Amino acid sequence: MTVRYQLYCVGGSGNSFKVALFLNCAGLDWEPVGVDLAGGQNRDPGWRAATNAMGEVPVLEVDGRRMSQSGAILTWLAETHGVFGPAGDEEKFETLRWLLFDNHKFTGHFAAHRALYAKTLDPHPAALAYIREKTESALSIVDKHLAPRRFMLGDRPTIVDFSLVGYLYYPTEETGFDLAAAYPAIDAWRGRVAALPGWKPPYEMMPVGKSMPMRF
Amino acid sequence: MTVRYQLYCVGGSGNSFKVALFLNCAGLDWEPVGVDLAGGQNRDPGWRAATNAMGEVPVLEVDGRRMSQSGAILTWLAETHGVFGPAGDEEKFETLRWLLFDNHKFTGHFAAHRALYAKTLDPHPAALAYIREKTESALSIVDKHLAPRRFMLGDRPTIVDFSLVGYLYYPTEETGFDLAAAYPAIDAWRGRVAALPGWKPPYEMMPVGKSMPMRF
Repeated sequence: MTVRYQLYCVGGSGNSFKVALFLNCAGLDWEPVGVDLAGGQNRDPGWRAATNAMGEVPVLEVDGRRMSQSGAILTWLAETHGVFGPAGDEEKFETLRWLLFDNHKFTGHFAAHRALYAKTLDPHPAALAYIREKTESALSIVDKHLAPRRFMLGDRPTIVDFSLVGYLYYPTEETGFDLAAAYPAIDAWRGRVAALPGWKPPYEMMPVGKSMPMRF
Repeated sequence: MTVRYQLYCVGGSGNSFKVALFLNCAGLDWEPVGVDLAGGQNRDPGWRAATNAMGEVPVLEVDGRRMSQSGAILTWLAETHGVFGPAGDEEKFETLRWLLFDNHKFTGHFAAHRALYAKTLDPHPAALAYIREKTESALSIVDKHLAPRRFMLGDRPTIVDFSLVGYLYYPTEETGFDLAAAYPAIDAWRGRVAALPGWKPPYEMMPVGKSMPMRF
């Protein structure tokens, strides 16, 4: 029997996790396909031509079509399956607004910091401090937004939650951020997302060990 | 007579320019409203509460509603006015995919590099080298994509072009990148965008001098 969705991914990629989480929570038929990022598979011109010119994971394959960019995939999945999507034009705008902010400043900086902090041999302290400051600013904005809310758009979970929460279940030793201590609203919210039926940690849904090696 | 659109912006913000360019090329009735980024207006809690909790420009105001995130505004404008938008589901997906890539890696890194390079007193060389390398990688991906194309999605200009081109008309001394020398497809394409009716350089459409000061 053919599995409906193939997700090109790796356990260490929180961007991949965003899509895996949707697929699991929506109860869809999918399987992970490991990509050897550490070995440079995604930098190979053949892989880029066939799978993703942007050189990134995740890539979602369905009926021979390959789609990239977690935010675009989440939007497509929500529309296709009618779950976890925005309700109405105003929420649709808010969804896109937060997906862009997430990619630019929230996940963007948090993941870049983690890559330098945990996966780069001897990172320069100045580069680390530069990206850490940007990450803290984005975390504060989201923590403030979440303080009076259960989920990013209000009372129910949406793809905005799946997107922003992508990197927030990796351990503190790996991310360099103790969220429970410094960002209480984010910490409570990621707990609510983790309580959704279908939630599993990143390394239980996707292949371990093909990401970039840890520094520790 | 009331002007239909107010754009909270500043000439040095390429993200603001993306929206200004759409408004001008679509021949819409709009006016710029300067924001004093250098003086910290956008970090003021009152400004954030009333205008944009994310603390960024541009913000587009219409009928009392204030919208932020250039990619979300561009999508909204294209749908509202029926111009420069994607045609069909596949182009709609590609549009979102490139808007996300732009915010995360293309504009994201190019603008961050420019901010460090030209607007930060005594930037650390390691931080600058870190962000420069990421910028070069994104520029290469877009240059390769544009080589066989007139515009990002093919033969006609769309909001994807307005988004990606946002920071590419600032002078080399300000950005640190000589695009004409190193990225010929990007250079030719930004020329095609500049030939569109309504195009003007950033500082001719938006207030000068309220951005962060230049280092030079």
